[in-house]
Amino acid sequence: MYDTAIIGSGPAGLSAALNLKLHNKDFVWFGSADLSAKVEKSEKIANYPGLGMITGTALNRSFSAQTDQMGIVLTDRMVTAVMPSEEGFSLLAENDIYEARTLLLAVGAAAAKGFRGENELLGRGVSYCATCDGFLYRGKTIAVFCGDRRYEHEVLYLAEQAEQVYLHVPYAGCEIDRENVEILQKPIVQVKGESRVTAIILSDGTEKNVDGLFCLRSAVAPAVLLPDLAVDGAHIVVNRRMETNLPGCFAAGDCTGRPYQIAKAVGEGNVAAHSILEYLSQYGQTQSK
Amino acid sequence: MYDTAIIGSGPAGLSAALNLKLHNKDFVWFGSADLSAKVEKSEKIANYPGLGMITGTALNRSFSAQTDQMGIVLTDRMVTAVMPSEEGFSLLAENDIYEARTLLLAVGAAAAKGFRGENELLGRGVSYCATCDGFLYRGKTIAVFCGDRRYEHEVLYLAEQAEQVYLHVPYAGCEIDRENVEILQKPIVQVKGESRVTAIILSDGTEKNVDGLFCLRSAVAPAVLLPDLAVDGAHIVVNRRMETNLPGCFAAGDCTGRPYQIAKAVGEGNVAAHSILEYLSQYGQTQSK
Repeated sequence: MYDTAIIGSGPAGLSAALNLKLHNKDFVWFGSADLSAKVEKSEKIANYPGLGMITGTALNRSFSAQTDQMGIVLTDRMVTAVMPSEEGFSLLAENDIYEARTLLLAVGAAAAKGFRGENELLGRGVSYCATCDGFLYRGKTIAVFCGDRRYEHEVLYLAEQAEQVYLHVPYAGCEIDRENVEILQKPIVQVKGESRVTAIILSDGTEKNVDGLFCLRSAVAPAVLLPDLAVDGAHIVVNRRMETNLPGCFAAGDCTGRPYQIAKAVGEGNVAAHSILEYLSQYGQTQSK
Repeated sequence: MYDTAIIGSGPAGLSAALNLKLHNKDFVWFGSADLSAKVEKSEKIANYPGLGMITGTALNRSFSAQTDQMGIVLTDRMVTAVMPSEEGFSLLAENDIYEARTLLLAVGAAAAKGFRGENELLGRGVSYCATCDGFLYRGKTIAVFCGDRRYEHEVLYLAEQAEQVYLHVPYAGCEIDRENVEILQKPIVQVKGESRVTAIILSDGTEKNVDGLFCLRSAVAPAVLLPDLAVDGAHIVVNRRMETNLPGCFAAGDCTGRPYQIAKAVGEGNVAAHSILEYLSQYGQTQSK
């Protein structure tokens, strides 16, 4: 059992990881080896104290060097389900179960949303895991949202299973070129269906009939992961200690609301880590190996 | 009339200043040319994201370079009184009045306290301004708390006026050597008196009869500056937007509570600046020159 599971490798998750590491906690940190795509893409950052005018790429590189220097390991897996357990939380990531006493959601603003209808139809045609559910769609028609280039191999796998794939990617330069894959020019905004998924709707109102929708993102919307989590629109509700409404579950960074700022995220990650340390202290002896 | 007055030059005040400057706001920033004595004295900082393992001195130097680069000016004066006005706040600093639409308190944890009895006896023997009130104590006995080396010239001025001075300094290497100045080995914990100051009490219980107490600090306790400000013990009460209970008055950094961390302070300074921008937007046209 880990002391903490951190989901998200942006500035908030990173800031928390640094503090938990300094306190010798045993944690698993889920995220992308690239840390934050959002930071990476920032052209110039002028308002992060201590670093002057810096590019996002350079800042991300500094973040990465710091975690390496401290021996912090990142687990490049997508958490697709979380179950509150008696002792904390059970997390499912690519068919492995991770148990943790506390949970920190630092999943960013984008992941906090999800498509209209996605939550309601999860497990009834909406899936987050190509490997787990791909075989169910052999010979069928599916839609795929591929949030990051690094999931393209999963799209290819799905294209081998399904007869027809409607694909949307939010980035430029997608290299998938298969006869049965149609690249959608407009983004998906909604998934429809009564007992099961029947169609997706695009931003221009176009409807495509599908049997399923795969959402391949670096993180699943928190309200989907944890249905009892209190949210306010697309944001997780937290107090000044970064506690959510669920005991042992904390949140930090863009997923807790505006302003979407690196300084805010590192501050909240720091506060969350300290609240987690205090929460863990009730168990006396640390769980650290 | 300034858009904003920031009191405090630690990481919280700095973070806010960077953001207000980027948004072309016209603000006055009160603090020490050395920025943060607390950061300066930190031996090693390992948990500030982006800078690896760094000394406090080096971090403070980076902070300073960044403000210079952006043309941000620091006003090295102590604010000794704040009056809410119809349009915002009037601040008194060394006999000059500054008017500002909004106020950000980023005064740190130490200044948030003050001695027992200090608030009650302010103006009745307790003073924050040697230049303003020193002459009142000619031939009398006073106590002086000198919070920083850079106020030692004020202590010397007071020693010229008063017959006897009890001095306490919280730092090492005070160079004041006057016949009528007795350096107290124990810190002052309380100031006593009914209608006026009559004595101070030290941490070991010793009482010294005095006619007045001068507190020379980089910032005055917020609850003294603004008697209607809601506080919880030594901390200013704020919400997630860093709003205090007083409209137009915000707070950030150590003065809002634990954890006392640089990352938390820069995060809160950033959030406060964004809340201030939103608050100012109600006045339409910016006040910027």
